[in-house]
Amino acid sequence: MIYPSKLVEQAVKEVSKLPSIGSKSALRLVLHMLKEDPIYTESLADTLVKLRNEIQYCQQCHSISDDTLCNICSSTKRDNNVVCVVEETKDVLAIENTGQFFGLYHVLGGIISPIEGISPADLKIESLIERIKKEGIEEIILALSSTMEGDTTAFYLSKKLKDFDIKITSIARGVPIGGELEYADEVTLGRSILSRGQYKG
Amino acid sequence: MIYPSKLVEQAVKEVSKLPSIGSKSALRLVLHMLKEDPIYTESLADTLVKLRNEIQYCQQCHSISDDTLCNICSSTKRDNNVVCVVEETKDVLAIENTGQFFGLYHVLGGIISPIEGISPADLKIESLIERIKKEGIEEIILALSSTMEGDTTAFYLSKKLKDFDIKITSIARGVPIGGELEYADEVTLGRSILSRGQYKG
Repeated sequence: MIYPSKLVEQAVKEVSKLPSIGSKSALRLVLHMLKEDPIYTESLADTLVKLRNEIQYCQQCHSISDDTLCNICSSTKRDNNVVCVVEETKDVLAIENTGQFFGLYHVLGGIISPIEGISPADLKIESLIERIKKEGIEEIILALSSTMEGDTTAFYLSKKLKDFDIKITSIARGVPIGGELEYADEVTLGRSILSRGQYKG
Repeated sequence: MIYPSKLVEQAVKEVSKLPSIGSKSALRLVLHMLKEDPIYTESLADTLVKLRNEIQYCQQCHSISDDTLCNICSSTKRDNNVVCVVEETKDVLAIENTGQFFGLYHVLGGIISPIEGISPADLKIESLIERIKKEGIEEIILALSSTMEGDTTAFYLSKKLKDFDIKITSIARGVPIGGELEYADEVTLGRSILSRGQYKG
């Protein structure tokens, strides 16, 4: 790629480190900033640095938060007896957007991955056990990705939590709503037959 | 959209002002920055602010440049007799990437657009005329978009430059290389017939 200036080249290099932004998109973004008012670039840069330096994580569920306790953990309207275990804050957002879950969350901060060198000790598992001991949790829902790492983490957690008097559940796997059978992969389709439920017309 | 914190919401708002980045993509980028080392966000922010504040434009062709004269204008290997007139610096990059042009450029900084309130006075037209008067330019290539605004600008320029003893040409319009006839729009196809050239086997 040919760059018109070293400053542009450096900026493209930094911007293209972001996920799913290649050097062509980065160049387009950089040239856009040069056409806009300099105040925009200042404001963007300030906001990002402020975000990165001032961000907090909820002491209870480890989700991104403005305070020591996040909006969900501090809400009186949520069901404290059910805790949904997820990998990242973005999974909390995805589940919140469904409007179908009214319990609390626990963000592990990753999943067990020997390839990436992430062991159980790197995840917020001890603090989950502390929560189970202290709070009157009745159910732990494992909402982890259906990948080898997700399954490993779910298996590890289920072993760790088996001595507690709590129900351990996992989100349902099956053919997506609106999905056509012929496009579902065979593993999902097979699992959806094994996990079939009563037809509710 | 539900945001886990006000800082995240503000950052998403700023990032999604960039072209072709919606709030979902912006959220993904912001959450990625939170997972990365804070040094990355600092470095990104510094680079963008530095770019925006220190960027220069070539005094001769008005393209983005590190110095008062850009690499192309200051090169001794380029043909000073041919000047290609384009709308933006990104068009210079696109033509440079073809490796087919060895002359100089002139960046107008926009095209005439009554709807967006861009008049000929807003463009670097006077400085193009100055270049024609001072330098021994023999040919001006109009490489503007094939839109109403591009055609208006090309027409305006051709009128402005008609009294000078220079050749005024325009880049060829036609069916794209590798394009199938049935998918070409009728205007392009019609024009490609009118502008047909000798078959070169």
